[in-house]
Amino acid sequence: MAEVFVPMFVPQPIGFVSSPYKDTGAIPKGPGAKHEAEGVLKILPEFALGLTDIEGFSHLYVIWVFDRSGDFELIGKPPTDNRPHGVFATRSPRRPNPIGLTVVELLRRENESLHVRGVDMLDGTPILDIKPYLSSIPPETLRRGWLSEAETRNG
Amino acid sequence: MAEVFVPMFVPQPIGFVSSPYKDTGAIPKGPGAKHEAEGVLKILPEFALGLTDIEGFSHLYVIWVFDRSGDFELIGKPPTDNRPHGVFATRSPRRPNPIGLTVVELLRRENESLHVRGVDMLDGTPILDIKPYLSSIPPETLRRGWLSEAETRNG
Repeated sequence: MAEVFVPMFVPQPIGFVSSPYKDTGAIPKGPGAKHEAEGVLKILPEFALGLTDIEGFSHLYVIWVFDRSGDFELIGKPPTDNRPHGVFATRSPRRPNPIGLTVVELLRRENESLHVRGVDMLDGTPILDIKPYLSSIPPETLRRGWLSEAETRNG
Repeated sequence: MAEVFVPMFVPQPIGFVSSPYKDTGAIPKGPGAKHEAEGVLKILPEFALGLTDIEGFSHLYVIWVFDRSGDFELIGKPPTDNRPHGVFATRSPRRPNPIGLTVVELLRRENESLHVRGVDMLDGTPILDIKPYLSSIPPETLRRGWLSEAETRNG
């Protein structure tokens, strides 16, 4: 098919994650995985002004790069299931655009360092963006697709 | 300071948003803005396999490109307040990496088209990624920083 040309951008890190996880095997995965690990979002000095007033938010979205994942796979088996699913229905690192998304709890800010709870990134992961986490979908209206089925099957 | 070199990626659209909003002025903004608009995420045929099993999720994260925003501003006034805030404490389009994030409700899938509610993107916006929305922060633990203060001030 014809290639699609659109104005895009050149990703640049605004900072890096300091995390206890040095390799992917160390990151909790699968049903019931808890992400309670603490880490630090170290923002580069030239972007520090963009952190103004961030202290007021309890939770943040962190958008980051899977910088150590391989080529993308449109379908594959996540650790939470023994059946394959489409990449856009999973959090697989092997995505067409290798972008990760994590909600973290902001514990405190020290200058350009945001101390957070809930990291699931590898140490040294490049950060693309931080946004305030503003709202949540009421749990009673949320359907979790194949994941709840897999959890039920796996007990 | 020394420039930072890290392995990054070249962003490519996996599809485009079909939205009722043709210009930014039409998008609801400010306190109490509701995003109830329906739209379609049109995924390119070569990525359609990645949608397998997506029907089971009620809500999706959409990661997309602010393809019509200007240069970034580290500090600026959002439409929800008359005081300036850091870009990482707002949803401003003028970000170092012009990446947008929206939670939408999946209404139905028709082949490579995801009909969704809650779009706040312009028509034709390039989509970078789609992820299942899996969990939410309990509202009672959420602090909304300058935004709740601005809402209180603006009544």
